[in-house]
Amino acid sequence: MSIRKPVIGVMGPGKTELHTEPVEKHVELATELGKQIASHGWFLLTGGRNLGVMDAACRGAKSAGGTTIGILPGPDALDSSDAIDIPIITGMGSARNNVNALSSTVLIAVGMGPGTAAEVALALKARKPVVLLATQPEAEKFFTSLDASLVHVASDVESAIVHVKALLAAQSEATS
Amino acid sequence: MSIRKPVIGVMGPGKTELHTEPVEKHVELATELGKQIASHGWFLLTGGRNLGVMDAACRGAKSAGGTTIGILPGPDALDSSDAIDIPIITGMGSARNNVNALSSTVLIAVGMGPGTAAEVALALKARKPVVLLATQPEAEKFFTSLDASLVHVASDVESAIVHVKALLAAQSEATS
Amino acid sequence: MSIRKPVIGVMGPGKTELHTEPVEKHVELATELGKQIASHGWFLLTGGRNLGVMDAACRGAKSAGGTTIGILPGPDALDSSDAIDIPIITGMGSARNNVNALSSTVLIAVGMGPGTAAEVALALKARKPVVLLATQPEAEKFFTSLDASLVHVASDVESAIVHVKALLAAQSEATS
Amino acid sequence: MSIRKPVIGVMGPGKTELHTEPVEKHVELATELGKQIASHGWFLLTGGRNLGVMDAACRGAKSAGGTTIGILPGPDALDSSDAIDIPIITGMGSARNNVNALSSTVLIAVGMGPGTAAEVALALKARKPVVLLATQPEAEKFFTSLDASLVHVASDVESAIVHVKALLAAQSEATS
Repeated sequence: MSIRKPVIGVMGPGKTELHTEPVEKHVELATELGKQIASHGWFLLTGGRNLGVMDAACRGAKSAGGTTIGILPGPDALDSSDAIDIPIITGMGSARNNVNALSSTVLIAVGMGPGTAAEVALALKARKPVVLLATQPEAEKFFTSLDASLVHVASDVESAIVHVKALLAAQSEATS
Repeated sequence: MSIRKPVIGVMGPGKTELHTEPVEKHVELATELGKQIASHGWFLLTGGRNLGVMDAACRGAKSAGGTTIGILPGPDALDSSDAIDIPIITGMGSARNNVNALSSTVLIAVGMGPGTAAEVALALKARKPVVLLATQPEAEKFFTSLDASLVHVASDVESAIVHVKALLAAQSEATS
Repeated sequence: MSIRKPVIGVMGPGKTELHTEPVEKHVELATELGKQIASHGWFLLTGGRNLGVMDAACRGAKSAGGTTIGILPGPDALDSSDAIDIPIITGMGSARNNVNALSSTVLIAVGMGPGTAAEVALALKARKPVVLLATQPEAEKFFTSLDASLVHVASDVESAIVHVKALLAAQSEATS
Repeated sequence: MSIRKPVIGVMGPGKTELHTEPVEKHVELATELGKQIASHGWFLLTGGRNLGVMDAACRGAKSAGGTTIGILPGPDALDSSDAIDIPIITGMGSARNNVNALSSTVLIAVGMGPGTAAEVALALKARKPVVLLATQPEAEKFFTSLDASLVHVASDVESAIVHVKALLAAQSEATS
């Protein structure tokens, strides 16, 4: 197991959740984040749909030669992002958000919405480290109040990647 | 379906999540809330375990002659509250939090922790109304920022029940 | 827990699965079985939809004053049987078949189809007793080959109920 | 989506289910099957644990340079096969068997037990083609009685692979 590649989860709103804020910012960040994840040789895991942050992260990862895993909520792959290599079809709706949380070595939220909030909360429940990238201050304060030891805040992709590296190094040390 | 009794979900931390805040307050509130739910002739639905808020709410409901449903995370009923009439055994861990959210006509959070936060977020994702009872200001601000139209804040049991009645009346009107 | 009412699961094809065999026979058996379950003071648990065996069993139970629980596969209760008192909304499709299996003290299959076969198999996996009522010989032979100690065959409702009583008595003895 | 690699599911008993029959035969078949799946450039998906058929198939696939995906039932990867590249951690027990069924383009059962039977039944429920390799005659007769159009019987690895190729070709034609 020591040579298994880390699985980095990138979560964030689909277009349908982004009522009030500019989608372009989070889509740009997610694209760059996906590229960086692939460049570091990590697997990228997302919610798999052809929307918003999850689609953008996968496209970024593919542009850098990465491998992408999509945990789909529906009963088939019809709404899957084209940039998913491995569609996992759960048919369990938003209960699949817990699969996203459990399967990610580190979970990064890019922006925020109800589904993303559930994924962050389920990650904390499972004692998984979380990086909040460009989320609103209310989200940072709330999740930090739930568990300050597991929540890390980043304002750009570079610092998000620095957090991931440190978290992977700490975990590797803990299990060796 | 018009004569089916409403199912009111009461979510809140088990003992293991209450690191920093007094458990007694939330347990007292949950007990009284369970009583009131039973007195109004509604079903009570909780996470079912013999811990914290979920156990207290069920004990309150049983003391007032109510019927209690527990959506258990484990593969058997061994950790079920004795005050559960109907144990639903999911064996799916925290993914069962989505069953709690979907099965509740209105969901009330008493206190807050990672599991409760996931339930509130999943309820909002499914467009279900939520009442936050005695949760910290960070939680109120965050969930209101996600969807102000679905989130209602209450500081005591009486006002939580007022919210539930109004929400049930509005829903009944919408479907009639 | 000793005074909790047993939950008897009744599984069977919806109309959509009954390609080749007469639906009337299984619907009649399920109706009578539901009545008997209610008369014995047990809870009835089904897949909850307004179709075939699950609907018929619930109607039978309600006609005898019973309480019915439906574990629904969809994200809402729109396709629920009117004869369900307590709809549990899972939103997890056929993965909810495992909730049916785990939540039933004894599981009775009336007729057979792919979904029912999954429920029987999942019950056996969880070491739950199963009664096959009016299933085809191929089903009886197959499930008996998987675990003869847990599979009981009945050709009419009366003998199915005799099996349930004996299984509940054996379980009560084992846990007392 | 047209260039996405097919995901071939291989299901079969873990050691704990193999009470009465020689495990060696199914382990040998699963190892060879995993090799063949990898040689054809397909992804291998299994239940992921370090036991019986699922472990053997993954080891076979890795020996031929393949990529392996494990859909794990537990809340972590502690019981994962070392030959899994991508562990998907579901934490949902046997409800994950439906994820196995939905995520497999074709599902192959090697040997039989209650968990494997659930996977085959759930695949048929979702209208997925199934190949039964070296299962007992009772299983072949039963599943064929459920849906003869989706169930294919093979007695050796070579004929199982012939079935998979034909099923993939038929599917490719249907979607092009």
